[in-house]
Amino acid sequence: MSRFLNEKYQKLEAYTPGEQPRDMKYIKLNTNESPYPPSQGVLDAVNSVEAANLRLYSDPECKRLKEAIAELYEVDTENIYLSNGSDDILNFSFMAFAGNGVPAAFPEISYGFYKVYAELYGLEYRKISLKEDFSVNAGDYCGINSFIVIANPNAPTGKTISEEDIRRILESNPDNVVLIDEAYVDFGGESVYPLIREYKNLLVVQTFSKSRSMAGARLGFAFGDKELISDLNRIKYSTNPYNLNRITLVAGEAAIKENSYYMDNCKRIVDTREYTTVQLKKLGFEVLDSKANFIFAKSNKIDGEELYKKLKENGILVRHFPDKKISAFIRVTIGARADMETFIEAVRKILEEK
Amino acid sequence: MSRFLNEKYQKLEAYTPGEQPRDMKYIKLNTNESPYPPSQGVLDAVNSVEAANLRLYSDPECKRLKEAIAELYEVDTENIYLSNGSDDILNFSFMAFAGNGVPAAFPEISYGFYKVYAELYGLEYRKISLKEDFSVNAGDYCGINSFIVIANPNAPTGKTISEEDIRRILESNPDNVVLIDEAYVDFGGESVYPLIREYKNLLVVQTFSKSRSMAGARLGFAFGDKELISDLNRIKYSTNPYNLNRITLVAGEAAIKENSYYMDNCKRIVDTREYTTVQLKKLGFEVLDSKANFIFAKSNKIDGEELYKKLKENGILVRHFPDKKISAFIRVTIGARADMETFIEAVRKILEEK
Repeated sequence: MSRFLNEKYQKLEAYTPGEQPRDMKYIKLNTNESPYPPSQGVLDAVNSVEAANLRLYSDPECKRLKEAIAELYEVDTENIYLSNGSDDILNFSFMAFAGNGVPAAFPEISYGFYKVYAELYGLEYRKISLKEDFSVNAGDYCGINSFIVIANPNAPTGKTISEEDIRRILESNPDNVVLIDEAYVDFGGESVYPLIREYKNLLVVQTFSKSRSMAGARLGFAFGDKELISDLNRIKYSTNPYNLNRITLVAGEAAIKENSYYMDNCKRIVDTREYTTVQLKKLGFEVLDSKANFIFAKSNKIDGEELYKKLKENGILVRHFPDKKISAFIRVTIGARADMETFIEAVRKILEEK
Repeated sequence: MSRFLNEKYQKLEAYTPGEQPRDMKYIKLNTNESPYPPSQGVLDAVNSVEAANLRLYSDPECKRLKEAIAELYEVDTENIYLSNGSDDILNFSFMAFAGNGVPAAFPEISYGFYKVYAELYGLEYRKISLKEDFSVNAGDYCGINSFIVIANPNAPTGKTISEEDIRRILESNPDNVVLIDEAYVDFGGESVYPLIREYKNLLVVQTFSKSRSMAGARLGFAFGDKELISDLNRIKYSTNPYNLNRITLVAGEAAIKENSYYMDNCKRIVDTREYTTVQLKKLGFEVLDSKANFIFAKSNKIDGEELYKKLKENGILVRHFPDKKISAFIRVTIGARADMETFIEAVRKILEEK
């Protein structure tokens, strides 16, 4: 840190991304990436023809990609916001929709970045406890007059919240934005994006990083009433108008046009998730009911941190969170079936050696 | 705008990017893009092998690209910051290095985004007049205890400020960051990045958008003392750690490795700039002495706005700024020689028809 840094950022604790060690080849089950490559159309789109166009700026309005998404999801282009990964949408939303007397609120156990954004903007905020079973208690969010952020499915639990509960939260906080972070919704959850027609205070955030196999392309999108979207655009045009590069734009468009490929992959991941859950339960694990492309599981025979470390020694990366309320657990991304078999076998051996 | 938007952003006037009309095919001399495509290595790097890896997150540390830049520029990787276009670096710098009693200061006539950032963060700021000849008066920036931003060469004038003047500014503002925006430095300017070894308060910002033909890939970089760079990283890891996509990272690395291709293109652009300047002067224009890939020129026979409009009717886009101090001028990107001949011919006809 330099002595020039504005005092208000001097105590920031940044988000810690999942580790990306390079000392050996790991089976990566730690950052919720897809085991499947992008579709053929995406591979074709990312070709040298488009590369030659890289000399020209990308379209700041992202018109073609917005049109493709609008068609698939049956919304208007003005209900769509696109960004350099969905983190950017979260960032802008904390900036735009909280502060100035409006506190933020989100589950105590959830995506770790929510707290970072709240701190970054010096917001008042509340971390709301989950229920005993790790589900979100909708009642805790009703009538709290806060900018509310809920991941659905939640991370790292994988548990969902019902549309009915989301409606209650929206209706009881009519003067505040309710952001539903649906990064993992395509793996068995149910998106509430159609509700943007009914609720002007609903912002639904999704990403191409998980179900659409494009984490490395950095592409997030949001659905909302056109006024909410115009707020996000106001911030975008005041920070970085060309926020998306040309290749990601064409890749995203191709992915949307081959949607069934990705939805089929999601089904395969759901099947593999069920397989993995059954196997872990056979080994005595408690596994939360997940609708995401990861599971959150704990064993009463081995602590989460120890299991994480032993798996890493075996060339398998999973995620462990030090927060003591969840430190017994590991979060395991659902990879290809063969990788999950290797994972299960490794867990079995680790438990046997205890 | 929604009624949920934080009051402090409700009056923001966002930056207006250069127009990108789609009604017909234009000769685009309005957004300072390169007329030359990226090098072969970039085209090769952007291929389907890397596309298949898009399922995986990009490296948040951008290690390989930083190493390539460090080698070419003979600095350490910890002196380099990389971002999704250089606008993002400007954005973070206004956020990090001004406010809390530190005002911002920049030339009155310069890149229009500086004012937008100052407004976005609610900063006190001063726009400092240029001299009569449109050059920056270094004395005006000495000892002003402000976060100072100067584009060198400046836009839209193309005029430079000397290293000696920059040293005076750095030395007389030892408690503040001085940001030198070198977006256009490769077209005949002289970079002050080697001074980061001497001045801990110097941040030098460059981009792949102009001299490296990659505006559409969105890649900016900055040089600074490692403490300044760590401040930018602190903001990055608190907003969007994976700020660069995989393809831009490999494309940037390939571009750095083929640096001579780009520097040769810069020489060609400088030659074409001299040709265009001579031709415009023959037509009676005043043309400021530019070290950028654009020229700023005015005629006493036709107003800047009228000339801009007539050129557009002729299928040629240039940039006109309504600010009355410079509204007599047009800013013309230096394109390929043939495009500039077409431009000159169009200007000649427009003047004849007056």
